[in-house]
Amino acid sequence: MSTTAAPADTIRNGVDTGVMYATLDAIKAQPELGTFQFRAKNRWIGGAHNQTTIQNFYGAGQEDTSRAHEFTIDAGEPAILLGTDTGPNPAEYLLHALAACLTTSIVYVAAARGVELTEVESTLEGDMDVQGALGLNDDYRNGFEQIRVSFTVKGDAPEEKLRGIVARAQLRSAVFDMVTNGVPVSVDVTTD
Amino acid sequence: MSTTAAPADTIRNGVDTGVMYATLDAIKAQPELGTFQFRAKNRWIGGAHNQTTIQNFYGAGQEDTSRAHEFTIDAGEPAILLGTDTGPNPAEYLLHALAACLTTSIVYVAAARGVELTEVESTLEGDMDVQGALGLNDDYRNGFEQIRVSFTVKGDAPEEKLRGIVARAQLRSAVFDMVTNGVPVSVDVTTD
Repeated sequence: MSTTAAPADTIRNGVDTGVMYATLDAIKAQPELGTFQFRAKNRWIGGAHNQTTIQNFYGAGQEDTSRAHEFTIDAGEPAILLGTDTGPNPAEYLLHALAACLTTSIVYVAAARGVELTEVESTLEGDMDVQGALGLNDDYRNGFEQIRVSFTVKGDAPEEKLRGIVARAQLRSAVFDMVTNGVPVSVDVTTD
Repeated sequence: MSTTAAPADTIRNGVDTGVMYATLDAIKAQPELGTFQFRAKNRWIGGAHNQTTIQNFYGAGQEDTSRAHEFTIDAGEPAILLGTDTGPNPAEYLLHALAACLTTSIVYVAAARGVELTEVESTLEGDMDVQGALGLNDDYRNGFEQIRVSFTVKGDAPEEKLRGIVARAQLRSAVFDMVTNGVPVSVDVTTD
Protein backbone atom coordinates (compact mmCIF):
# COMPACT_ATOMS: atom_id res chain seq x y z
CA MET A 1 0.00 0.00 0.00
CA SER A 2 1.22 3.53 -0.65
CA THR A 3 2.08 5.89 2.16
CA THR A 4 -0.66 8.35 1.19
CA ALA A 5 -3.74 8.34 3.38
CA ALA A 6 -6.23 5.55 2.72
CA PRO A 7 -9.65 6.75 1.56
CA ALA A 8 -12.01 7.34 4.44
CA ASP A 9 -14.84 5.38 2.84
CA THR A 10 -14.87 1.70 1.90
CA ILE A 11 -14.75 2.06 -1.91
CA ARG A 12 -11.53 0.81 -3.47
CA ASN A 13 -11.06 0.17 -7.21
CA GLY A 14 -14.77 0.84 -7.61
CA VAL A 15 -15.58 -2.04 -5.24
CA ASP A 16 -17.34 -1.41 -1.94
CA THR A 17 -15.18 -3.45 0.40
CA GLY A 18 -17.69 -2.93 3.21
CA VAL A 19 -20.34 -4.69 1.16
CA MET A 20 -17.74 -7.28 0.08
CA TYR A 21 -16.95 -8.26 3.66
CA ALA A 22 -20.63 -8.18 4.66
CA THR A 23 -21.38 -10.56 1.75
CA LEU A 24 -18.58 -12.91 2.78
CA ASP A 25 -19.82 -12.88 6.40
CA ALA A 26 -23.40 -13.56 5.31
CA ILE A 27 -22.35 -16.60 3.25
CA LYS A 28 -20.09 -17.87 6.02
CA ALA A 29 -23.03 -17.68 8.45
CA GLN A 30 -25.51 -19.22 5.96
CA PRO A 31 -23.57 -21.28 3.40
CA GLU A 32 -26.68 -22.07 1.31
CA LEU A 33 -26.60 -18.42 0.16
CA GLY A 34 -23.61 -19.45 -1.99
CA THR A 35 -25.77 -21.46 -4.39
CA PHE A 36 -26.04 -19.64 -7.74
CA GLN A 37 -27.42 -20.56 -11.14
CA PHE A 38 -26.61 -18.47 -14.20
CA ARG A 39 -28.57 -18.77 -17.43
CA ALA A 40 -28.56 -17.82 -21.09
CA LYS A 41 -31.09 -18.17 -23.91
CA ASN A 42 -29.88 -18.34 -27.49
CA ARG A 43 -31.79 -18.08 -30.74
CA TRP A 44 -30.54 -18.74 -34.28
CA ILE A 45 -31.20 -15.82 -36.63
CA GLY A 46 -29.60 -17.02 -39.88
CA GLY A 47 -26.28 -18.42 -41.09
CA ALA A 48 -23.60 -17.83 -38.46
CA HIS A 49 -25.71 -15.18 -36.73
CA ASN A 50 -27.28 -16.08 -33.43
CA GLN A 51 -28.26 -14.04 -30.43
CA THR A 52 -28.15 -14.66 -26.69
CA THR A 53 -30.29 -12.92 -24.10
CA ILE A 54 -29.29 -12.89 -20.45
CA GLN A 55 -31.16 -11.47 -17.49
CA ASN A 56 -32.34 -13.54 -14.55
CA PHE A 57 -30.31 -15.77 -12.31
CA TYR A 58 -30.67 -17.50 -8.97
CA GLY A 59 -28.40 -16.51 -6.13
CA ALA A 60 -28.20 -15.66 -2.44
CA GLY A 61 -31.30 -17.71 -1.68
CA GLN A 62 -33.66 -16.27 -4.26
CA GLU A 63 -34.42 -15.48 -7.88
CA ASP A 64 -32.61 -12.24 -8.61
CA THR A 65 -34.83 -9.48 -9.96
CA SER A 66 -32.35 -6.62 -9.73
CA ARG A 67 -31.60 -6.37 -13.43
CA ALA A 68 -33.90 -3.83 -15.02
CA HIS A 69 -33.44 -5.17 -18.55
CA GLU A 70 -31.99 -8.11 -20.41
CA PHE A 71 -28.60 -8.11 -22.12
CA THR A 72 -28.55 -9.03 -25.80
CA ILE A 73 -25.36 -10.41 -27.35
CA ASP A 74 -24.82 -11.20 -31.03
CA ALA A 75 -22.43 -13.84 -32.31
CA GLY A 76 -21.18 -14.33 -35.86
CA GLU A 77 -18.28 -15.46 -37.98
CA PRO A 78 -16.01 -13.58 -40.38
CA ALA A 79 -16.30 -14.20 -44.12
CA ILE A 80 -13.48 -16.76 -44.18
CA LEU A 81 -15.54 -18.85 -41.76
CA LEU A 82 -18.75 -18.44 -43.78
CA GLY A 83 -20.34 -15.64 -41.79
CA THR A 84 -21.06 -11.95 -42.23
CA ASP A 85 -19.44 -10.53 -39.08
CA THR A 86 -22.67 -10.10 -37.14
CA GLY A 87 -20.53 -10.27 -33.99
CA PRO A 88 -17.37 -11.82 -32.56
CA ASN A 89 -17.23 -15.55 -33.06
CA PRO A 90 -17.86 -18.03 -30.24
CA ALA A 91 -14.17 -18.80 -29.64
CA GLU A 92 -13.45 -15.06 -29.37
CA TYR A 93 -16.26 -14.79 -26.81
CA LEU A 94 -14.55 -17.50 -24.79
CA LEU A 95 -11.37 -15.37 -24.76
CA HIS A 96 -13.48 -12.41 -23.64
CA ALA A 97 -15.09 -14.44 -20.83
CA LEU A 98 -11.64 -15.51 -19.64
CA ALA A 99 -10.18 -11.97 -19.79
CA ALA A 100 -13.20 -10.46 -18.04
CA CYS A 101 -13.20 -12.99 -15.20
CA LEU A 102 -9.47 -12.75 -14.52
CA THR A 103 -9.69 -8.94 -14.61
CA THR A 104 -12.60 -8.73 -12.19
CA SER A 105 -10.87 -11.24 -9.92
CA ILE A 106 -7.72 -9.08 -9.94
CA VAL A 107 -9.75 -5.96 -9.11
CA TYR A 108 -11.62 -7.66 -6.23
CA VAL A 109 -8.50 -9.28 -4.77
CA ALA A 110 -6.65 -5.95 -4.95
CA ALA A 111 -9.56 -4.22 -3.20
CA ALA A 112 -9.49 -6.84 -0.44
CA ARG A 113 -5.73 -6.44 -0.05
CA GLY A 114 -5.85 -2.66 0.14
CA VAL A 115 -4.19 -2.02 -3.23
CA GLU A 116 -5.41 0.82 -5.45
CA LEU A 117 -5.05 -0.23 -9.09
CA THR A 118 -4.48 2.30 -11.85
CA GLU A 119 -4.42 -0.04 -14.87
CA VAL A 120 -5.37 -3.61 -15.74
CA GLU A 121 -5.04 -4.53 -19.39
CA SER A 122 -4.71 -7.86 -21.10
CA THR A 123 -4.21 -9.34 -24.53
CA LEU A 124 -5.25 -12.91 -25.26
CA GLU A 125 -4.34 -15.25 -28.09
CA GLY A 126 -5.82 -18.64 -28.84
CA ASP A 127 -4.25 -21.01 -31.36
CA MET A 128 -6.56 -23.24 -33.34
CA ASP A 129 -6.10 -25.46 -36.38
CA VAL A 130 -9.53 -25.55 -37.94
CA GLN A 131 -8.80 -28.91 -39.55
CA GLY A 132 -10.05 -30.27 -36.23
CA ALA A 133 -13.45 -28.59 -36.07
CA LEU A 134 -13.95 -29.07 -39.82
CA GLY A 135 -13.49 -32.81 -39.42
CA LEU A 136 -10.53 -32.90 -41.83
CA ASN A 137 -7.80 -34.20 -39.54
CA ASP A 138 -8.27 -35.81 -36.15
CA ASP A 139 -4.69 -34.97 -35.16
CA TYR A 140 -6.13 -31.56 -34.22
CA ARG A 141 -8.64 -30.89 -31.50
CA ASN A 142 -11.70 -28.74 -32.25
CA GLY A 143 -10.85 -25.92 -29.87
CA PHE A 144 -7.77 -23.90 -28.99
CA GLU A 145 -4.55 -25.88 -28.55
CA GLN A 146 -3.50 -23.25 -26.05
CA ILE A 147 -4.40 -19.78 -24.82
CA ARG A 148 -1.87 -17.12 -23.85
CA VAL A 149 -2.91 -14.26 -21.57
CA SER A 150 -0.61 -11.25 -21.06
CA PHE A 151 -1.55 -8.83 -18.30
CA THR A 152 -0.26 -5.35 -17.58
CA VAL A 153 -1.18 -4.47 -14.00
CA LYS A 154 -0.28 -1.19 -12.31
CA GLY A 155 -1.14 0.21 -8.90
CA ASP A 156 0.17 1.56 -5.60
CA ALA A 157 2.00 -1.61 -4.59
CA PRO A 158 5.42 -3.12 -5.34
CA GLU A 159 5.79 -5.57 -8.21
CA GLU A 160 5.79 -8.61 -5.94
CA LYS A 161 2.47 -7.63 -4.38
CA LEU A 162 0.88 -6.96 -7.79
CA ARG A 163 2.07 -10.36 -9.03
CA GLY A 164 0.64 -11.98 -5.91
CA ILE A 165 -2.73 -10.40 -6.68
CA VAL A 166 -2.74 -11.82 -10.21
CA ALA A 167 -1.71 -15.25 -8.87
CA ARG A 168 -4.54 -15.22 -6.33
CA ALA A 169 -7.04 -14.07 -8.99
CA GLN A 170 -5.94 -16.94 -11.25
CA LEU A 171 -6.43 -19.35 -8.34
CA ARG A 172 -10.00 -18.10 -7.75
CA SER A 173 -11.37 -17.09 -11.16
CA ALA A 174 -14.50 -19.03 -12.11
CA VAL A 175 -13.87 -18.89 -15.86
CA PHE A 176 -10.13 -19.63 -15.54
CA ASP A 177 -11.11 -22.77 -13.62
CA MET A 178 -13.68 -23.77 -16.25
CA VAL A 179 -11.46 -23.07 -19.26
CA THR A 180 -8.43 -24.85 -17.84
CA ASN A 181 -10.17 -27.78 -16.13
CA GLY A 182 -13.34 -28.23 -18.15
CA VAL A 183 -16.95 -28.62 -16.98
CA PRO A 184 -19.40 -31.51 -17.50
CA VAL A 185 -21.95 -30.36 -20.11
CA SER A 186 -25.20 -32.20 -20.81
CA VAL A 187 -27.04 -31.53 -24.08
CA ASP A 188 -30.73 -32.28 -24.39
CA VAL A 189 -32.63 -32.00 -27.70
CA THR A 190 -36.32 -31.44 -28.49
CA THR A 191 -37.44 -31.55 -32.11
CA ASP A 192 -41.14 -30.74 -31.85
CA MET B 1 -34.60 -33.92 -46.67
CA SER B 2 -38.09 -32.83 -47.67
CA THR B 3 -39.61 -33.88 -50.98
CA THR B 4 -39.96 -30.29 -52.13
CA ALA B 5 -37.45 -29.12 -54.70
CA ALA B 6 -34.03 -28.18 -53.38
CA PRO B 7 -33.08 -24.52 -53.93
CA ALA B 8 -31.27 -23.98 -57.20
CA ASP B 9 -28.50 -21.95 -55.60
CA THR B 10 -26.03 -23.09 -52.98
CA ILE B 11 -27.36 -21.07 -50.01
CA ARG B 12 -28.86 -23.19 -47.27
CA ASN B 13 -29.67 -21.93 -43.74
CA GLY B 14 -27.92 -18.72 -44.71
CA VAL B 15 -24.69 -20.64 -45.39
CA ASP B 16 -23.19 -20.74 -48.86
CA THR B 17 -22.49 -24.45 -49.20
CA GLY B 18 -20.53 -23.81 -52.41
CA VAL B 19 -18.09 -21.63 -50.50
CA MET B 20 -18.14 -24.16 -47.65
CA TYR B 21 -17.02 -27.01 -49.90
CA ALA B 22 -14.47 -24.80 -51.68
CA THR B 23 -13.02 -23.86 -48.29
CA LEU B 24 -12.82 -27.50 -47.22
CA ASP B 25 -11.13 -28.41 -50.51
CA ALA B 26 -8.62 -25.57 -50.20
CA ILE B 27 -7.61 -26.66 -46.68
CA LYS B 28 -7.41 -30.30 -47.76
CA ALA B 29 -5.05 -29.29 -50.58
CA GLN B 30 -3.01 -26.93 -48.40
CA PRO B 31 -3.38 -27.98 -44.74
CA GLU B 32 -1.37 -25.01 -43.42
CA LEU B 33 -4.37 -22.82 -44.31
CA GLY B 34 -6.05 -24.41 -41.27
CA THR B 35 -3.84 -22.50 -38.82
CA PHE B 36 -5.84 -19.76 -37.05
CA GLN B 37 -5.17 -17.46 -34.14
CA PHE B 38 -7.99 -15.53 -32.48
CA ARG B 39 -7.35 -12.59 -30.18
CA ALA B 40 -8.98 -10.30 -27.66
CA LYS B 41 -7.85 -7.20 -25.80
CA ASN B 42 -9.39 -6.32 -22.47
CA ARG B 43 -9.22 -3.14 -20.39
CA TRP B 44 -10.43 -2.55 -16.84
CA ILE B 45 -12.75 0.44 -16.57
CA GLY B 46 -13.72 0.40 -12.89
CA GLY B 47 -15.09 -2.05 -10.31
CA ALA B 48 -16.54 -5.07 -12.09
CA HIS B 49 -16.71 -3.20 -15.40
CA ASN B 50 -14.21 -4.17 -18.06
CA GLN B 51 -14.33 -4.05 -21.83
CA THR B 52 -12.98 -6.32 -24.55
CA THR B 53 -12.23 -5.28 -28.11
CA ILE B 54 -11.95 -7.84 -30.88
CA GLN B 55 -11.06 -7.33 -34.51
CA ASN B 56 -8.05 -8.92 -36.15
CA PHE B 57 -7.12 -12.55 -36.35
CA TYR B 58 -4.79 -14.78 -38.31
CA GLY B 59 -6.24 -17.43 -40.59
CA ALA B 60 -6.04 -19.08 -43.98
CA GLY B 61 -2.39 -18.14 -44.36
CA GLN B 62 -2.59 -14.44 -43.55
CA GLU B 63 -3.61 -11.69 -41.18
CA ASP B 64 -7.30 -11.15 -41.77
CA THR B 65 -8.27 -7.59 -42.63
CA SER B 66 -11.85 -8.22 -43.65
CA ARG B 67 -13.46 -6.78 -40.55
CA ALA B 68 -14.28 -3.12 -41.12
CA HIS B 69 -14.49 -2.27 -37.42
CA GLU B 70 -13.74 -3.73 -34.03
CA PHE B 71 -16.31 -5.31 -31.77
CA THR B 72 -16.62 -3.90 -28.25
CA ILE B 73 -18.03 -6.06 -25.46
CA ASP B 74 -18.74 -4.95 -21.90
CA ALA B 75 -18.66 -7.24 -18.89
CA GLY B 76 -19.97 -6.58 -15.40
CA GLU B 77 -21.54 -8.13 -12.36
CA PRO B 78 -24.96 -7.70 -10.76
CA ALA B 79 -25.29 -5.87 -7.43
CA ILE B 80 -25.22 -9.06 -5.35
CA LEU B 81 -21.76 -9.75 -6.81
CA LEU B 82 -20.55 -6.19 -6.17
CA GLY B 83 -21.08 -4.77 -9.65
CA THR B 84 -23.43 -2.32 -11.34
CA ASP B 85 -24.70 -4.47 -14.24
CA THR B 86 -22.46 -2.92 -16.88
CA GLY B 87 -22.86 -6.15 -18.85
CA PRO B 88 -23.39 -9.89 -18.42
CA ASN B 89 -20.88 -11.44 -16.06
CA PRO B 90 -17.95 -13.55 -17.28
CA ALA B 91 -19.57 -16.89 -16.45
CA GLU B 92 -22.69 -15.86 -18.39
CA TYR B 93 -20.46 -14.98 -21.36
CA LEU B 94 -19.04 -18.48 -21.20
CA LEU B 95 -22.59 -19.86 -21.49
CA HIS B 96 -23.14 -17.54 -24.47
CA ALA B 97 -19.93 -18.73 -26.15
CA LEU B 98 -21.03 -22.33 -25.71
CA ALA B 99 -24.56 -21.71 -27.01
CA ALA B 100 -23.32 -19.71 -29.99
CA CYS B 101 -20.74 -22.30 -31.03
CA LEU B 102 -23.11 -25.26 -30.75
CA THR B 103 -25.78 -23.33 -32.67
CA THR B 104 -23.47 -22.33 -35.52
CA SER B 105 -22.15 -25.89 -35.67
CA ILE B 106 -25.73 -27.20 -35.94
CA VAL B 107 -26.51 -24.72 -38.73
CA TYR B 108 -23.35 -25.59 -40.71
CA VAL B 109 -23.78 -29.36 -40.29
CA ALA B 110 -27.42 -29.10 -41.36
CA ALA B 111 -26.39 -27.07 -44.43
CA ALA B 112 -23.82 -29.73 -45.34
CA ARG B 113 -26.41 -32.49 -44.90
CA GLY B 114 -29.03 -30.74 -47.00
CA VAL B 115 -31.40 -29.96 -44.15
CA GLU B 116 -33.27 -26.64 -44.07
CA LEU B 117 -33.68 -25.54 -40.46
CA THR B 118 -36.57 -23.40 -39.32
CA GLU B 119 -35.68 -22.98 -35.64
CA VAL B 120 -32.70 -23.47 -33.36
CA GLU B 121 -33.17 -22.26 -29.81
CA SER B 122 -31.38 -23.16 -26.63
CA THR B 123 -31.49 -22.46 -22.92
CA LEU B 124 -28.41 -22.96 -20.78
CA GLU B 125 -28.02 -23.25 -17.04
CA GLY B 126 -24.78 -23.32 -15.08
CA ASP B 127 -24.69 -24.27 -11.39
CA MET B 128 -22.10 -22.60 -9.21
CA ASP B 129 -21.55 -22.41 -5.47
CA VAL B 130 -19.71 -19.14 -5.01
CA GLN B 131 -18.13 -20.39 -1.78
CA GLY B 132 -15.49 -21.79 -4.15
CA ALA B 133 -14.53 -18.61 -6.00
CA LEU B 134 -14.83 -16.57 -2.79
CA GLY B 135 -12.29 -18.83 -1.12
CA LEU B 136 -14.70 -19.78 1.68
CA ASN B 137 -14.90 -23.55 1.14
CA ASP B 138 -12.57 -25.67 -0.93
CA ASP B 139 -15.20 -28.39 -1.28
CA TYR B 140 -16.53 -26.25 -4.13
CA ARG B 141 -14.74 -25.49 -7.37
CA ASN B 142 -14.56 -21.90 -8.62
CA GLY B 143 -16.54 -22.46 -11.80
CA PHE B 144 -19.75 -24.22 -12.76
CA GLU B 145 -20.23 -27.69 -11.29
CA GLN B 146 -22.18 -28.54 -14.42
CA ILE B 147 -23.83 -26.93 -17.42
CA ARG B 148 -27.13 -28.07 -18.93
CA VAL B 149 -27.96 -27.16 -22.53
CA SER B 150 -31.50 -27.72 -23.88
CA PHE B 151 -31.97 -27.34 -27.63
CA THR B 152 -35.14 -27.06 -29.65
CA VAL B 153 -34.29 -27.81 -33.28
CA LYS B 154 -36.83 -27.81 -36.11
CA GLY B 155 -36.42 -28.30 -39.85
CA ASP B 156 -37.38 -30.30 -42.91
CA ALA B 157 -36.00 -33.61 -41.64
CA PRO B 158 -37.24 -36.41 -39.41
CA GLU B 159 -36.43 -36.33 -35.71
CA GLU B 160 -33.63 -38.87 -36.03
CA LYS B 161 -31.83 -36.79 -38.64
CA LEU B 162 -32.18 -33.60 -36.59
CA ARG B 163 -30.78 -35.39 -33.53
CA GLY B 164 -27.90 -36.67 -35.64
CA ILE B 165 -27.09 -33.10 -36.67
CA VAL B 166 -26.95 -31.96 -33.04
CA ALA B 167 -24.77 -34.94 -32.13
CA ARG B 168 -22.34 -34.16 -34.96
CA ALA B 169 -22.27 -30.46 -34.00
CA GLN B 170 -21.46 -31.43 -30.41
CA LEU B 171 -18.63 -33.63 -31.72
CA ARG B 172 -17.13 -30.76 -33.74
CA SER B 173 -17.88 -27.57 -31.81
CA ALA B 174 -14.72 -25.69 -30.83
CA VAL B 175 -16.19 -24.17 -27.66
CA PHE B 176 -17.93 -27.39 -26.59
CA ASP B 177 -14.52 -29.09 -26.83
CA MET B 178 -12.84 -26.34 -24.80
CA VAL B 179 -15.53 -26.10 -22.12
CA THR B 180 -15.79 -29.86 -21.61
CA ASN B 181 -12.11 -30.80 -21.98
CA GLY B 182 -10.28 -27.65 -20.91
CA VAL B 183 -7.41 -25.79 -22.57
CA PRO B 184 -3.88 -25.06 -21.30
CA VAL B 185 -3.76 -21.35 -20.40
CA SER B 186 -0.54 -19.45 -19.70
CA VAL B 187 -0.70 -16.15 -17.83
CA ASP B 188 2.11 -13.63 -18.13
CA VAL B 189 2.26 -10.43 -16.03
CA THR B 190 3.98 -7.09 -16.62
CA THR B 191 3.86 -4.48 -13.86
CA ASP B 192 5.67 -1.54 -15.40
